[in-house]
Amino acid sequence: MKNRITDLFQIKYPIISGGMVWCSGWRLAAAVSNAGGLGLIGAGSMYPDILREHIRKIKIATNKTFGVNVPLLYPEIDKLISIIIEEKVKVVFTSAGNPKTWTSLLKENGIKVVHVVSSSKFAVKCEEAGVDAIVAEGFEAGGHNGREETTTLALLPQIKQVTSFPVIAAGGIATGNGMLAAMVLGAEGVQIGTAFALSEESSAHINFKQRALSIKEGETALCLKKITPVRLIKNEFYKRVEEAECKGATAEELRELLGRGRAKLGIFEGNLEEGELEIGQVASLIKKIKPVKQIVDEIIQEFNQSASEINKLEFPL
Amino acid sequence: MKNRITDLFQIKYPIISGGMVWCSGWRLAAAVSNAGGLGLIGAGSMYPDILREHIRKIKIATNKTFGVNVPLLYPEIDKLISIIIEEKVKVVFTSAGNPKTWTSLLKENGIKVVHVVSSSKFAVKCEEAGVDAIVAEGFEAGGHNGREETTTLALLPQIKQVTSFPVIAAGGIATGNGMLAAMVLGAEGVQIGTAFALSEESSAHINFKQRALSIKEGETALCLKKITPVRLIKNEFYKRVEEAECKGATAEELRELLGRGRAKLGIFEGNLEEGELEIGQVASLIKKIKPVKQIVDEIIQEFNQSASEINKLEFPL
Repeated sequence: MKNRITDLFQIKYPIISGGMVWCSGWRLAAAVSNAGGLGLIGAGSMYPDILREHIRKIKIATNKTFGVNVPLLYPEIDKLISIIIEEKVKVVFTSAGNPKTWTSLLKENGIKVVHVVSSSKFAVKCEEAGVDAIVAEGFEAGGHNGREETTTLALLPQIKQVTSFPVIAAGGIATGNGMLAAMVLGAEGVQIGTAFALSEESSAHINFKQRALSIKEGETALCLKKITPVRLIKNEFYKRVEEAECKGATAEELRELLGRGRAKLGIFEGNLEEGELEIGQVASLIKKIKPVKQIVDEIIQEFNQSASEINKLEFPL
Repeated sequence: MKNRITDLFQIKYPIISGGMVWCSGWRLAAAVSNAGGLGLIGAGSMYPDILREHIRKIKIATNKTFGVNVPLLYPEIDKLISIIIEEKVKVVFTSAGNPKTWTSLLKENGIKVVHVVSSSKFAVKCEEAGVDAIVAEGFEAGGHNGREETTTLALLPQIKQVTSFPVIAAGGIATGNGMLAAMVLGAEGVQIGTAFALSEESSAHINFKQRALSIKEGETALCLKKITPVRLIKNEFYKRVEEAECKGATAEELRELLGRGRAKLGIFEGNLEEGELEIGQVASLIKKIKPVKQIVDEIIQEFNQSASEINKLEFPL
């Protein structure tokens, strides 16, 4: 099977890894590209020089297409963009900002641009900005998330109603059935965060991976909505946030409580009580750490199996 | 196509209408059953005598199976249950309470029992209680909702992992593609609230229907979480709730702000500013008021069309 997403990136499977802070270095991105998907280096947690190093390493680790995810609120964004252009990266996923700011420059340099949105209103803005595709990310996704709280199931058909360009579904997808469901709803590809964050090749700390694998359904929550909404595991730090929010803490008070570097502390350094443990709702579906190749193969096998069974479903009119 | 849900209720399509307060009287329920699905009378907003009246009317309006939805927190629940047994209703959907309390009595009287849950933990309790099937309701659903905030996409596979009995998906489903996506994720039927609440046969006020049809994505929110979480349209009343919650209002303060009868005021009497306007996220997908028969036929047509196309999707391994 081929579609606009496999054609756009010249990939075998329309499976893209999330550009996740502290998880998505060259090793994870290369493994995803080598497995037939599109691997993304997550630049959000990298200094510009570190990003350059990761780009140079991935070029050695794979000859397949890879991309870089850039949060547009990154303080030295111009440096990141320069490095991406200099290093001739072919694909950039942007998020958390206005798609108009950098799309033209990137496209003039022959780069495919995809922007992440959580509403159809922003999907329309992306189309106007000339991006090649969008990621539609639902409420169930881990980490930073939209204010509308629209779920993947409700968001995809909304976006298909107002745009005609290719849509990649994100949030709540970790299996072949999840991927097939997203494609039934009009997606032409899926972005998978949680499952890859918990893979062997993810650079997240083993403590973080094991904690995330152990959670049950309902043990993540979207919080810090007065600053930037983020989905976290309900650990000690979360409980303090919850208590503060329950009492009506202001954005400023929450910013103080949050401090700096908590995502690194939790995800990369493995401090399970004081760190921000960013993960999606589907973490509770995942039971063990696997290599990326196995994750991708299992998704595709389940997808094919379910797709072949589904056409037996037909109701009399 | 037949499955455990169509067999259980002896229905043509595994489409069940939500038991929605102030929307689901005998007229809506009969229309859904006559269209090939399973119509439910929503007893939550009815005095016991009114429920009896609706049951007697639906028996005249359809010879197909219908059911009654009973919120288990209803104050005079024993009266409702007696009427249901006396009137020989064949199907009861229970929600908002412990499934163990009434399931045995209902089943001894030959009644099929389905319980609504929003987590796999409660799904297991339902299986232990001996219900015939469950409804798995996601975060995107309208009206009262679970505390875990798990979305339909994330919830369905979780529930399939821990139970083996038939699952009906609810929340975020208003189209044939949504129904097919839910079935890909393991559901054997769907419960549709929003689309039927906005149908011709719904007893909701025309003001409510028109307001719900006009909303854009992101214009509903889950609120009143310190009392009972409920998804509402963001109207004047919601804004007062939001403001109070933002400042850390207690459950008691919120209960006072809520007062009594706001769902009736909004949905049945059409007071768009002061009422609670309960509706699901998919309302923004729906553009006009249609008769139930047309809604069901369009869902089935889209479902069949998509199911027949989906088997062309196959990836090389």
